[in-house]
Amino acid sequence: AKQKILLLPGDGIGPEIMEQAVRIIDWLKAERGLDVELSEDVVGGASLAKYDVPIRDEVIAKAKAADAVLFGSVGDPAWKDVPFDRRPEVAILRLRKELNLYANLRPAKLFDPLLSASALKPDVVRGLDLMIVRETVGGVYFGEPRGIETLPDGTKRGVNTEVYTTAEIERVARVAFDLARLRSGRVCSVEKGNVMESGLLWREVVTDLHKREYSDVTLTHMLADNCAMQLVRDPRQFDVMVTGNLFGDLLSDLASMLTGSLGMLPSATLGTPEGTDKQAALYEPIHGSAPDIAGKGIANPLAQILSLAMMLRYSLDRGADSELIEQAVSNVLASGLRTADIAAAGESRVSTAEMGEAVLKELQKL
Amino acid sequence: AKQKILLLPGDGIGPEIMEQAVRIIDWLKAERGLDVELSEDVVGGASLAKYDVPIRDEVIAKAKAADAVLFGSVGDPAWKDVPFDRRPEVAILRLRKELNLYANLRPAKLFDPLLSASALKPDVVRGLDLMIVRETVGGVYFGEPRGIETLPDGTKRGVNTEVYTTAEIERVARVAFDLARLRSGRVCSVEKGNVMESGLLWREVVTDLHKREYSDVTLTHMLADNCAMQLVRDPRQFDVMVTGNLFGDLLSDLASMLTGSLGMLPSATLGTPEGTDKQAALYEPIHGSAPDIAGKGIANPLAQILSLAMMLRYSLDRGADSELIEQAVSNVLASGLRTADIAAAGESRVSTAEMGEAVLKELQKL
Ligand SMILES: CC(C)[C@H](C(=O)O)[C@@H](O)C(=O)O
Ligand SMILES: CC(C)[C@H](C(=O)O)[C@@H](O)C(=O)O
Repeated sequence: AKQKILLLPGDGIGPEIMEQAVRIIDWLKAERGLDVELSEDVVGGASLAKYDVPIRDEVIAKAKAADAVLFGSVGDPAWKDVPFDRRPEVAILRLRKELNLYANLRPAKLFDPLLSASALKPDVVRGLDLMIVRETVGGVYFGEPRGIETLPDGTKRGVNTEVYTTAEIERVARVAFDLARLRSGRVCSVEKGNVMESGLLWREVVTDLHKREYSDVTLTHMLADNCAMQLVRDPRQFDVMVTGNLFGDLLSDLASMLTGSLGMLPSATLGTPEGTDKQAALYEPIHGSAPDIAGKGIANPLAQILSLAMMLRYSLDRGADSELIEQAVSNVLASGLRTADIAAAGESRVSTAEMGEAVLKELQKL
Repeated sequence: AKQKILLLPGDGIGPEIMEQAVRIIDWLKAERGLDVELSEDVVGGASLAKYDVPIRDEVIAKAKAADAVLFGSVGDPAWKDVPFDRRPEVAILRLRKELNLYANLRPAKLFDPLLSASALKPDVVRGLDLMIVRETVGGVYFGEPRGIETLPDGTKRGVNTEVYTTAEIERVARVAFDLARLRSGRVCSVEKGNVMESGLLWREVVTDLHKREYSDVTLTHMLADNCAMQLVRDPRQFDVMVTGNLFGDLLSDLASMLTGSLGMLPSATLGTPEGTDKQAALYEPIHGSAPDIAGKGIANPLAQILSLAMMLRYSLDRGADSELIEQAVSNVLASGLRTADIAAAGESRVSTAEMGEAVLKELQKL
């Protein structure tokens, strides 16, 4: 049977960069025997505009039925004043939660030809290649109680709850330890256990699991504030990092910015929908919807294209196609092609479509 | 009446660097007519060792009675396995809470002679001078319910609660707006209101207050994950920033590391103990207790000395003395003196005491 891929381009630059990824899928179908069935739907602001909700139940069901979801990005300032449960971001949050995609793998890898795009000194980041494993269905993102209540005097009180259970911590830590075995064998677990009990439990559970099943991996612990500093001071000290939803949100964005090539970084979010033993996965760029440049045709499509490459490897068992794409991207960069986000001052810039076209041309040559 | 200063050196390098600040206080008493009464007490691991608690009620009472507290740092790996409510960090958390020190002012300022110590490219950080106003008595640090409970199956669940009220947000935002008026007139408020209702309320309250009372100040809003990125990409876009306790913890450490001179950065935490209208204040270095170098006599005393300078200005009404100290520190740096943390490879390093001595010598010359 054909494998099913659901495309969810979303808002802002999402549709523009997704278009370039689809060109590559089409080429793989025509030239490399990729046998997939694509379907596409709207989410985020686009869905609010059309259906008055950030994501329809129908789309959730389609995503559950698919072998993988290729996601663009959501977030649109046009919807900034909608009620909290109708904001565009609900689309990605519900997808993570309802597909139980609990482990978000976010690489921060420096592409050598882009060294000059980083704000950090070359000696600090050269060769940087770390992977943050971020928990994505728990923590303060989903904890109850939550909400805003009005106090007797008319002022308000906003509440959110950070919750982690042993089981939630263990399963995401396992992903990190397993990954470390395939990489350099080191995991750094990050929490704020000197202030938060949920962080203290996090540290305990990771420590126990390590002792029981992963003593071949080197485990260290770091407080989140110190980690934010260490990522700037000496990011190459890290290999695999594992942390909760909120710290992971900040630290992975920070880490990816160190590379100077945010527009290049893909991510995978993996899990197992409750009640099944099938693996579900969603692939998306690390960057957001970038409303400031949306519609201008200048966004960098490479993070979306590399997200497709991750999907081919991890969900579709097409490792060779995945490598082809990565090689093509690498050649295009080496040839000096730059979209605006990664161009140095004075360097000429190509459009989204030109960059997609160049990757396609490279593929045809390889 | 003499002004009362309570010295709390704490753990790790705290006592070593406090000693150098005290030499300067002694000099100010002898030479500049500073009329203060010093008292000193133990907190953190040092207090656990002596009194079996991280801070005694008596010390809290002394701190309340003092005109200002000069604090070193707490945190000691020797006490990492004590019950949660007895860890050394409780000392600073209780001081903040019981003195109602709700606004932590954390400058991230690049000292020009130290440009090379930053991991960032000189063009990205040259002249960096931002101020983070961090809320310090609310948020997830203090919210209830909190704790670790055991579930029926023997596994555990860790819970913390993030809470902010209109009043808590307003008072700290006021501090930021007032500061901005003395600086370049810009405030950036940081939260995660696209995911957390407490962050949404934060944004609303800051926006309303701005409209009502501070429309002369330029206010922008930024999501915390984006802020972590922007601090790396282009930190000079910021002037005053205001944020909650947890985001402030990470972002201010990140911001200070950008300067490459963490060992130089002081902070002030200001507030008004409930039931009084007296201003209370605690001054402390931004860096921690650095257990790895404690006792070696190599720690940088300048953050502690500059914390004293802040105290002289903000709590003791001795602006001239404060400027003298800042000038002396600046001269010492310009003369090339470096402790290990700020020395470039190959540069010779002075000890904690030598650095303190050099500042004193400069003061005598000024
Ligand atoms: C869009 C938003 C809800 C999301 C998050 O906070 O998780 C984004 O920042 C991310 O990191 O994927
Ligand atoms: C010591 C610790 C409790 C404290 C905090 O988290 O607030 C420290 O990191 C700080 O920033 O002052």
